[in-house]
Amino acid sequence: MRGAVYVNGNIAPADHAVIPVYDHGFVYGEGVYETLRTYNKVPFLYDRHIRRLRQSARHLDLAVPFDDPTLLGWIQDTIQAAGEMHEAYIRVLLTRGVGELTYDIKATPAPSLVIIVKPNEEAPARMFTEGIKICLVDVIRNHPQSVNPIIKSNNLLNNALAMQAAYRQGGEEALMCNYRGELSECSQSNFFMVRGGVALTPKSAAGLLEGVTRAFMFEVGREVGVEVRDVTLYPKDLDSADEMFITSTTREMSPVTRLDDRVIGSGTPGPITMKLLEGYRRKAQELTRALASRA
Amino acid sequence: MRGAVYVNGNIAPADHAVIPVYDHGFVYGEGVYETLRTYNKVPFLYDRHIRRLRQSARHLDLAVPFDDPTLLGWIQDTIQAAGEMHEAYIRVLLTRGVGELTYDIKATPAPSLVIIVKPNEEAPARMFTEGIKICLVDVIRNHPQSVNPIIKSNNLLNNALAMQAAYRQGGEEALMCNYRGELSECSQSNFFMVRGGVALTPKSAAGLLEGVTRAFMFEVGREVGVEVRDVTLYPKDLDSADEMFITSTTREMSPVTRLDDRVIGSGTPGPITMKLLEGYRRKAQELTRALASRA
Repeated sequence: MRGAVYVNGNIAPADHAVIPVYDHGFVYGEGVYETLRTYNKVPFLYDRHIRRLRQSARHLDLAVPFDDPTLLGWIQDTIQAAGEMHEAYIRVLLTRGVGELTYDIKATPAPSLVIIVKPNEEAPARMFTEGIKICLVDVIRNHPQSVNPIIKSNNLLNNALAMQAAYRQGGEEALMCNYRGELSECSQSNFFMVRGGVALTPKSAAGLLEGVTRAFMFEVGREVGVEVRDVTLYPKDLDSADEMFITSTTREMSPVTRLDDRVIGSGTPGPITMKLLEGYRRKAQELTRALASRA
Repeated sequence: MRGAVYVNGNIAPADHAVIPVYDHGFVYGEGVYETLRTYNKVPFLYDRHIRRLRQSARHLDLAVPFDDPTLLGWIQDTIQAAGEMHEAYIRVLLTRGVGELTYDIKATPAPSLVIIVKPNEEAPARMFTEGIKICLVDVIRNHPQSVNPIIKSNNLLNNALAMQAAYRQGGEEALMCNYRGELSECSQSNFFMVRGGVALTPKSAAGLLEGVTRAFMFEVGREVGVEVRDVTLYPKDLDSADEMFITSTTREMSPVTRLDDRVIGSGTPGPITMKLLEGYRRKAQELTRALASRA
């Protein structure tokens, strides 16, 4: 493993970073996290990610005992320790902390903070020229009353099981329905399909994590003149898609050209997808350059 | 924290036991576990617990690279290291292991094995004389197509959220329905209610973890002459319960005398419950004494 890891005030090389077995982030997966990446060495949309981290934590009654600038300082220290790299991948994890084996939150007075930093792996160029294959899997996205998908938590087995099903079918991402049979989201990204020139994505009410990049696409759409709309979608709607793409922090926007054994549109990334991708990248560069020059 | 912890071949005092941050048991909660306790220094129903651990692992395509006697040896080494105690609490965790941050199981060739041993905390006497209060909570048990409750996994947020809701209502255990509105199980135990002299428990088809103690109750029932039956139960059935109890490895059988604000039966542990509890204890002693004398 490359890079460095911050754990409760100490920074270690990735291979030496450890956490206590009694951390409830380990025994119960009880923790929340955010994934960020840098452009121009600046963590992109930092404020929005940390706002969402706080929101996830609130759902678990988990205190966030630091402010945004303090956390950013620790992230920057960890980036420094990780050594030379082009752009950074950053994963911030806040867990319930160490305590006796009980779900009573009084047993864990101090949350644990972990920051993983490593070189960001840019998506291979073919992902943008050829697009990827995704699979509609049988795994159902978590019921909002069981573990609400708006909580970005370490309980990622639902996502892992979906992704592993997609891998078995030769896919690079897994699309899931919710328990009502509506399309919800992918295992590590949000789903969009283009129909009649409009980019459609499942509504939050479908039970999904409101992706920071997903929300950003509404702004990008306005800038490049593409309507982006959240709607209720069903698997049968996939038949009428002219284009498809997914969004996530690390994958940015990845064009989707195959769904299971079907070819989408012409089989290459569609014009609306590419227009949005260009708009996304321009805006990401602009926003981070502005911050980099201020630093 | 008291006791000792085995981690991949090394045993450390509980407070010093650590696992790598890059272990997928930590970052994703991707792992399975079993909780055991000893009677007469012998892990009770060991074979059944380890059979279930293997079953959970199979659902995650997770290899179990040791046989039952080898694992038992490591457990005994850890009990030895934990020092003098009356009876032991044992938690065996098997995780996906250390690897790059991807759900692709090829990234994690070697699972991690963790064994937590500490003194077993006997349930307070009042639990058996007065019974406990449980709460029917709004948290819905995981959908079997999302993360199947038959997998005893480290993804315990569903259970934690249910239990934390019960704590807020003054309860000592949380009873959950499944997504169809049927009663399923409690956050850390199986649920039973007695009606007309018969002990009823939700069917496996409700989506629940088939508790080792739950299964054992069917045998105990036959020995003490109480019919134990698995059925489909709904919240309205709770109104007709003469008695209630819960079962788990660490709690054995705990009589339930209050459900939310309702008093169950006479408000003290009922006769069928106590008959089963005596039968359970007798059988647990007999089985472990037989094994202890052979060792």
